[in-house]
Amino acid sequence: MSIKEALNWRYATKKMNGEQVPQEKVDQIVAAAHLAPTSYGIQPFRVIVVSDNELKEKIKAVAYGQSQITDCSHLLIFAAWDNYTEERVKGMLAYTNAQRGLPESANADYFNTIITNLTSKTPEESFVHTSKQAYLAFGVALTEAATLKVDATPMEGFDAAKLDELLDLKSLGLKSTTLLPLGHRDEEGDWLLKLKKVRTPLEDFVIEHK
Amino acid sequence: MSIKEALNWRYATKKMNGEQVPQEKVDQIVAAAHLAPTSYGIQPFRVIVVSDNELKEKIKAVAYGQSQITDCSHLLIFAAWDNYTEERVKGMLAYTNAQRGLPESANADYFNTIITNLTSKTPEESFVHTSKQAYLAFGVALTEAATLKVDATPMEGFDAAKLDELLDLKSLGLKSTTLLPLGHRDEEGDWLLKLKKVRTPLEDFVIEHK
Repeated sequence: MSIKEALNWRYATKKMNGEQVPQEKVDQIVAAAHLAPTSYGIQPFRVIVVSDNELKEKIKAVAYGQSQITDCSHLLIFAAWDNYTEERVKGMLAYTNAQRGLPESANADYFNTIITNLTSKTPEESFVHTSKQAYLAFGVALTEAATLKVDATPMEGFDAAKLDELLDLKSLGLKSTTLLPLGHRDEEGDWLLKLKKVRTPLEDFVIEHK
Repeated sequence: MSIKEALNWRYATKKMNGEQVPQEKVDQIVAAAHLAPTSYGIQPFRVIVVSDNELKEKIKAVAYGQSQITDCSHLLIFAAWDNYTEERVKGMLAYTNAQRGLPESANADYFNTIITNLTSKTPEESFVHTSKQAYLAFGVALTEAATLKVDATPMEGFDAAKLDELLDLKSLGLKSTTLLPLGHRDEEGDWLLKLKKVRTPLEDFVIEHK
C-alpha cells in the first residue's frame, strides 16, 4: 500500500476490537521510529512497548479511561529525554564515531559545538526539543503502522506526570510525550469510522513561491 | 520501496546536485504532510514551497549558508501557527462539521471543550504545541520523500526570526519550525554518504513491558 493510500485508510481509531497485532508488525513499527532522523542524530527519546494487560489497565486510569488503551494489542509510549546532559550527548556522539571507525579526534570541534549547543538549553527548553524529535519519529511510526494495515490512535490526552510516575520514567531520565495504541478497528462499533476525513483545503495549506 | 528500505536509503543529504524533482513528486510529499494527523484535526501549520531561486539565495543567507538551500529543487518550509486563537480553532471545527454534513449543534459541547483547551494556552505554549504537530507531519513528509527516492535534508539550523521576517510570516500568523530541501544527492561530493548510518542499539531504544 502506498503512503498516500495508507494515510487515507488510517484514522484515529476510537474503538478497537481486541485482536492481536503480530509481533513482527509491532517490531517493524518500532524499527521505523528507531530509523527516524533526529537533531544531530542524538535520538533523545525511547519507545516503551506495553503488552502487559494489568499495566494497560493502570495506564488507562491515567488516560481518562480511553478504551483503546486496553482494547489495543500493544501500546507504544514515546518518551523523550528530560534534559540534554553532557554525559548523554557525549555518549551518543562517541558511540557514533566508534560505529564509523573514526577516532575521537576526527571531529572533536564539531562535537564540542553540538554539546555546547544542546547542553546550554534549560531543562524545559531541552524537553521541548527532545519532544519534537519524538513527534517526528511518532509521525514516521504511525505512517509505517498504516502501510502495514495496523490501526493506531495518536494520543496526547493523558496525565503525563502520573504516567511517568507509574512507569518510573524519572529514573530513566525520560518523560512521556505521546501514546500510540496499536490494534484493529471495531468496524461496527467505531463512530468515527463513519465520518469523512477532513483536512484544510489544500490551497489554503500550501503557500507557493515560484 | 518499503518504508524500512526507504528509511535506510535516506540520509540528511549534505550536498545536492541541482537536479530538479518532478512537480508530481513534490505534490505527493506535500500531500503526505497534509494528510498527517494533528491534535483534534486542527492542522495548526502550513507548508511553504519555494522554487524561486532568488528567494532561495536569501533564505540561504539566514540559514548559515547551507548549500542544500540553493542546490535543492524545491525547499519546503514547515511553519506553525503562532497561537491558538478562538477564530482559528472555531474556523477549522466549523469547516469540519460542514464537510461532514453535521449541524453546529451536533457536537457543540465537545467543540467548546476543544476551544477552551487550546485557547487557554499562552502564545508560547501554543507555539510549542503547534510546532509538535508540524514535526509529526514533517516526519510523515520525509518518509514519503524517501519512498519516492527524493533526497531531503531535515533542518533546524536557521535563524527562524529572520526567516519569518523575510517571508512576512507574522502577517499570516505563522512562525517557521523546520526546513526540508528536496533534491538529489551528489554521489561524489557528499562526505556523509560514505559514513555508516548509526542508531542507538535497538535494545537500549526499546523498553518492553510484557
